[in-house]
Amino acid sequence: MDSESRRFVGLDVGGTTMKAGVVDDAGQLKSHATMPTQTDRGQEAGLQTMAECIRRAVAAASLNIEDVTAIGVAVPGSLDLVDGVILDPPNLKPWRNVPVKQFITDTFARPVAFQNDANAAVFGEFWVGIGREYRSLVLFTLGTGIGGGIVLDGKILEGAHSHGGELGQTKIEATNGRLCGCGQRGCLEAYASATAVVKRTEEELAQSDEDSSLRRTLKEKGLLTAKDIFLAARHDPLAIRIVDRTAFYLGVACANVMHTINPELICFAGGMTGAGPPFLDAIRGYARSLAFARPAERTIIEYSALGSDAGVIGAAGCARMLIG
Amino acid sequence: MDSESRRFVGLDVGGTTMKAGVVDDAGQLKSHATMPTQTDRGQEAGLQTMAECIRRAVAAASLNIEDVTAIGVAVPGSLDLVDGVILDPPNLKPWRNVPVKQFITDTFARPVAFQNDANAAVFGEFWVGIGREYRSLVLFTLGTGIGGGIVLDGKILEGAHSHGGELGQTKIEATNGRLCGCGQRGCLEAYASATAVVKRTEEELAQSDEDSSLRRTLKEKGLLTAKDIFLAARHDPLAIRIVDRTAFYLGVACANVMHTINPELICFAGGMTGAGPPFLDAIRGYARSLAFARPAERTIIEYSALGSDAGVIGAAGCARMLIG
Repeated sequence: MDSESRRFVGLDVGGTTMKAGVVDDAGQLKSHATMPTQTDRGQEAGLQTMAECIRRAVAAASLNIEDVTAIGVAVPGSLDLVDGVILDPPNLKPWRNVPVKQFITDTFARPVAFQNDANAAVFGEFWVGIGREYRSLVLFTLGTGIGGGIVLDGKILEGAHSHGGELGQTKIEATNGRLCGCGQRGCLEAYASATAVVKRTEEELAQSDEDSSLRRTLKEKGLLTAKDIFLAARHDPLAIRIVDRTAFYLGVACANVMHTINPELICFAGGMTGAGPPFLDAIRGYARSLAFARPAERTIIEYSALGSDAGVIGAAGCARMLIG
Repeated sequence: MDSESRRFVGLDVGGTTMKAGVVDDAGQLKSHATMPTQTDRGQEAGLQTMAECIRRAVAAASLNIEDVTAIGVAVPGSLDLVDGVILDPPNLKPWRNVPVKQFITDTFARPVAFQNDANAAVFGEFWVGIGREYRSLVLFTLGTGIGGGIVLDGKILEGAHSHGGELGQTKIEATNGRLCGCGQRGCLEAYASATAVVKRTEEELAQSDEDSSLRRTLKEKGLLTAKDIFLAARHDPLAIRIVDRTAFYLGVACANVMHTINPELICFAGGMTGAGPPFLDAIRGYARSLAFARPAERTIIEYSALGSDAGVIGAAGCARMLIG
């Protein structure tokens, strides 16, 4: 089969939904399928759903599974990348020790690449996204949690024990750190994820009588979202402070990556990037003020280009790398 | 020339002294020379001293410069590794923009490798030291400051702008961080370098009337050293607290490296490793308590094996890599 007709499937499994797509040899997404993950139905059901999602993506591209060269699966951690197993995933509870790679291989009799979701996303950005002109890049995914992925010399930094690029769990406050969903304190995720932005705002509202449009939003809707807070940051002083401080925490995370990996590019993905250019500029400003002069001047800091397709495209890209 | 008779020179330039040595193809140090750096005499004098130190090491091995296959030079940052220039080094003031690689190349007409000092040290440990059985390792050098070096897949992680592995400048306290020698706040170096250990102790002594043998030491000697504090930590409650907290900060640094690079091995070098096994065990305990289960179980944490020779041997190893 010549390379122009090669087709790959990428599957990106999230805590709520999973997405699959057929991707061609140039990284173009040719079809799309989405299904609910429903972890509460158990991991056997979860594996069946993954297979069904792949079948639907293949069918949506008017292909048969025999037309697919290889399959890439991206899942949230923690993982054993060598064995292809989901170990003990905080975002896929109550799953444990799920042999995803073996199951997908057995089901479709195709080569299967298995990867952490943020690793797949950064590989997608490297292949055909914002990182396509660079050899080293770091991605932060800002959502319920914070994921991270690193590409160095054109390869995913998987780490010796499958835990490379777990940047949401790096500690930015050693002392009196905020409690993180992972059970530790002081993690970046506990300060700058969408969840943390909401929590920090609710705490500030509870701790003072400061007038804020967010207090009214909370009263009317019964809850706040990160989107409410970023929208309010166009005018509301409390929201402006929260968003600016969030940019500061992400600037610290950038500086730490600049002083460890020192990549050409740092990029941000996830819902919070909807906050647009002012938020990105604030992150850049803090990152540059905190880093050494050379990386401060030269490191490119951008939003991702592929958005929510990065995981599917990147997983397909990992499948493509697998077969050379 | 067969590889058994190849000889390399490593030069390790520090703020106070510089050391050179002839190293054979198996990483054995064959000679040793030391000279004062005397940065105050200016950078032209500094370059001449580097050349003289290299000549003395060559003579001490009963060789001529023609017998040397290549030369490796390790210097403190910040650097331009591509151009071989020391840019604006905090520990070699008032030097600026010193073209070391060109000068050594012109002087000796030999291939010259140019590297950050901690990068050279981690490469030495990788080549013939504590890391010789591993492909990925991270080194922290604990001295006046904290340096860092990373080897991944058998290669130094130089970074896109020569600032890979600057781990002393990673931020571990985003809020109200201690002032660091680099001018920033919250850097690891401001908490866990030898300088920081002394400063934190002096502050504790000044802030309370707590009985401590260190108060008497300070009165008698007029100053404290990190060694005084580590020695006192065998019995003195204040010293025990300071040392334990230092191990905690280094445990945070380990966890951050485990969640970014996820190396097989993390090692510590520098004078503070004289504190011996209890300090190392304390660092290990904190690192493991802060990391994900897999890297916590599997990451090896050790002191360096080459001690103060790591830079010279590693610089020679970089020269050896240069010529293949």
